Amino acid sequence: MNELDRLSPAEARDLIRRGEWEKPTSGLANGYTQGNLVVLPKELAFEFLLFCQRNPKPCPVLDVTEPGSAVPALVAPNADLSVDIPKYRVYRGGEMTEERTDIKELWNEDMVGFLLGCSFTFEHALMNNGIPVRHIERGWNVPMFKTNIQCVKAGRFEGPMVVSMRPIPEKDVVRAVQVTSRFPSVHGAPVHIGNPESIGIHDLYQPDFGDPVQIHEGEVPVFWACGVTPQAVAMHVKPEIMITHAPGHMFITDIRDEKYGVL
Amino acid sequence: MNELDRLSPAEARDLIRRGEWEKPTSGLANGYTQGNLVVLPKELAFEFLLFCQRNPKPCPVLDVTEPGSAVPALVAPNADLSVDIPKYRVYRGGEMTEERTDIKELWNEDMVGFLLGCSFTFEHALMNNGIPVRHIERGWNVPMFKTNIQCVKAGRFEGPMVVSMRPIPEKDVVRAVQVTSRFPSVHGAPVHIGNPESIGIHDLYQPDFGDPVQIHEGEVPVFWACGVTPQAVAMHVKPEIMITHAPGHMFITDIRDEKYGVL
Repeated sequence: MNELDRLSPAEARDLIRRGEWEKPTSGLANGYTQGNLVVLPKELAFEFLLFCQRNPKPCPVLDVTEPGSAVPALVAPNADLSVDIPKYRVYRGGEMTEERTDIKELWNEDMVGFLLGCSFTFEHALMNNGIPVRHIERGWNVPMFKTNIQCVKAGRFEGPMVVSMRPIPEKDVVRAVQVTSRFPSVHGAPVHIGNPESIGIHDLYQPDFGDPVQIHEGEVPVFWACGVTPQAVAMHVKPEIMITHAPGHMFITDIRDEKYGVL
Repeated sequence: MNELDRLSPAEARDLIRRGEWEKPTSGLANGYTQGNLVVLPKELAFEFLLFCQRNPKPCPVLDVTEPGSAVPALVAPNADLSVDIPKYRVYRGGEMTEERTDIKELWNEDMVGFLLGCSFTFEHALMNNGIPVRHIERGWNVPMFKTNIQCVKAGRFEGPMVVSMRPIPEKDVVRAVQVTSRFPSVHGAPVHIGNPESIGIHDLYQPDFGDPVQIHEGEVPVFWACGVTPQAVAMHVKPEIMITHAPGHMFITDIRDEKYGVL
């Protein structure tokens, strides 16, 4: 572990808040859960929360702010979601209009912030169990694919589930299911194992997002629901304004990964 | 198993809908999950869903209807929440004003129905593991207590957690934790084991709701979050109108209990 690993979540957020860290957050404050951010106007908040409720695998909710507040009271009561993330993306009418390092002046009394679990937590659990995670070994983005699995609709929110793929050695597949099942708050168990065609994925080497990774002899492609799903679905609604973290630039909570293990 | 045990959920709901079953639902369509009902005006729905989100142990959400619809699309797409429960209670301004066997004419376009997990599911799991559940053996209501554990506030919704108590033989306490941990959607693991004083319960033989049950030598009182919590909290807000099931008269879903096991 280096010094950045050992930062407390509050120290890491402070570094970010002071503008001294504008890079991806992977490796910061190791062992603490990081989350995806989606900020939407109050008018869409109930439907979006309902969508998450109905689709807990792609949209595992860690925290929701009170309308107008940028404080994630459950997972980091001293944090400020408008300044504690290294890079944000602002979408207007479904189009990205800018990237910023804070969104203080955009967070008006109409805004509701959603923090959703991310795969970092279960990937740590896999690695702690000796199960290799190829894209991390390579320093790449995980490959992500749109599937033919439709999310359950909620109001205006609907669309296909996006999944991430990790090649898992045959001997470790059962353990990978067990390990990730412990963490339903961060995508949980896989949604599919073994046959990409049947969930509408025709070429594993042409992901819709992220980088392709090689599948070796004796490995099985295993698919987990992905946190890109709610962003894609929200974008489809073309809200007047929507703000997210920039990919890899996550929010660091005060909650230890292991706290999200159900057993 | 008798004939009522073996009814399918649809058959049981049909019996109820035709007015041929106005009694508690325990034992109907065995093996299928039953749920608590809370119906609130749309204006309160986001805050209530947020409250449930922040307090998943007492308020495990199984399904939420679209505003105006009485169809729980996730757990029983052919059901009608306004007629498929044997007995309802209607509260106006926080006071119970009537009990009815249907709420068809009250379910206007402003209504949102919430189905919350109930303890039947994890009690079946305990009994399937050979762990005795005293109040069921006796045919009584489970004893329930207000605690000094404050729920996490959401908008206008706040208040103490209500828990249910089951005396568990010392040798079975660990197994009881394991078994109920599998079912986070129906209250999940206990919230306290062993020392009622420290959660604000001073006399185990004077429950706030339900019937007192005896704790034998060699047994430990174990406390689970209780589905009465969200009703108590919602009542406190004194909504213009709120409708719930009558105690024990639950909604029968199409989902098998085991489907809610996370592993």
